Amino acid sequence: MADIISKLEDTISQRRKSSAGESYVAKLTAQGRAKMAQKLGEEGVEAVIAAMADDRENMVGEAADLVFHLLVLLADMDLSWEDICKELERREGVSGLVEKGLRNVK
Amino acid sequence: MADIISKLEDTISQRRKSSAGESYVAKLTAQGRAKMAQKLGEEGVEAVIAAMADDRENMVGEAADLVFHLLVLLADMDLSWEDICKELERREGVSGLVEKGLRNVK
Amino acid sequence: MADIISKLEDTISQRRKSSAGESYVAKLTAQGRAKMAQKLGEEGVEAVIAAMADDRENMVGEAADLVFHLLVLLADMDLSWEDICKELERREGVSGLVEKGLRNVK
Amino acid sequence: MADIISKLEDTISQRRKSSAGESYVAKLTAQGRAKMAQKLGEEGVEAVIAAMADDRENMVGEAADLVFHLLVLLADMDLSWEDICKELERREGVSGLVEKGLRNVK
Repeated sequence: MADIISKLEDTISQRRKSSAGESYVAKLTAQGRAKMAQKLGEEGVEAVIAAMADDRENMVGEAADLVFHLLVLLADMDLSWEDICKELERREGVSGLVEKGLRNVK
Repeated sequence: MADIISKLEDTISQRRKSSAGESYVAKLTAQGRAKMAQKLGEEGVEAVIAAMADDRENMVGEAADLVFHLLVLLADMDLSWEDICKELERREGVSGLVEKGLRNVK
Repeated sequence: MADIISKLEDTISQRRKSSAGESYVAKLTAQGRAKMAQKLGEEGVEAVIAAMADDRENMVGEAADLVFHLLVLLADMDLSWEDICKELERREGVSGLVEKGLRNVK
Repeated sequence: MADIISKLEDTISQRRKSSAGESYVAKLTAQGRAKMAQKLGEEGVEAVIAAMADDRENMVGEAADLVFHLLVLLADMDLSWEDICKELERREGVSGLVEKGLRNVK
């Protein structure tokens, strides 16, 4: 299941090189960083609203939109999903130690 | 590398059951849905700012925060990362067809 | 100049009662609270981006959008600009005292 | 009641010149544009959440926070509340004509 993220990264990478009329990603790329950032922010707001409305079906769609636009923005900054996973891995390691420490204290 | 997301989901699931003093996730869980949604929205804003500042290092941290708080919110809605990946898979399938159609046209 | 806010509140109040096809406010009202909240959130994101881009002309437009959609949302919650000004007045009073206290300390 | 906005603008203008330890505005000013933009974005998210929770009391507080941080950001961009009001006035004029046109059509 995880492979869909890699597949999306490949698709985004290819479409970034195509002309603006050919795909949504190419259009966003042509519009530039501010437009991509705007889309990410807007999807964040929509996910917040789906969560507050407790609308699970809508939340799936908004979370997918959020992740997709995050990948688009990361690509524009020459960053990858793996960079984010490495950071999460690093924190989980630290956090595991902290959690263990907390358990010892209690 | 993809496994870190599953690992985080497990950690979040366990910590949701612990008392608020023991971990950040437990504290967020005790504070409720609105607080989790607020954190997601705030991390979205911070990712927007890192992108606009073209700060790659900061972006890695903000994107990790965003993904982490998305997982926390999904767990609170009894949704999983797999639900989101399935939706992205479904769209990529549709989108692949659309893209192919576009290529044929051109 | 301040009167434009009152004038807008009157306009919004009138348009909320008209049918959805007649005005933007009527359409937003028909779409409901979540849509109005979404617009406010999106305008917040766009103002953030204008600020980060240091685009003064764009900022004027985004700030106007933000204030307009705030008024629309307040109206939907049966709140007024005066309610917000009273709260700001109350805080400014408190803050004045705090500031004075800080000056005495220094 | 409108005077509180002018009063706040004066206060913000004065505090921008003071040192960071003396007031919240001075601290934000020292932290720079990105921090001010972040605060505006966060207050937008919190207003969205108060609206979705239909929490009128909380909405007054969040809207006041939003307006305050908007004034702080405008000051940092050498813009004023009057600039925003002029833009709203300009639009209201245009919008009035549009609305009238719409009424004639119906």
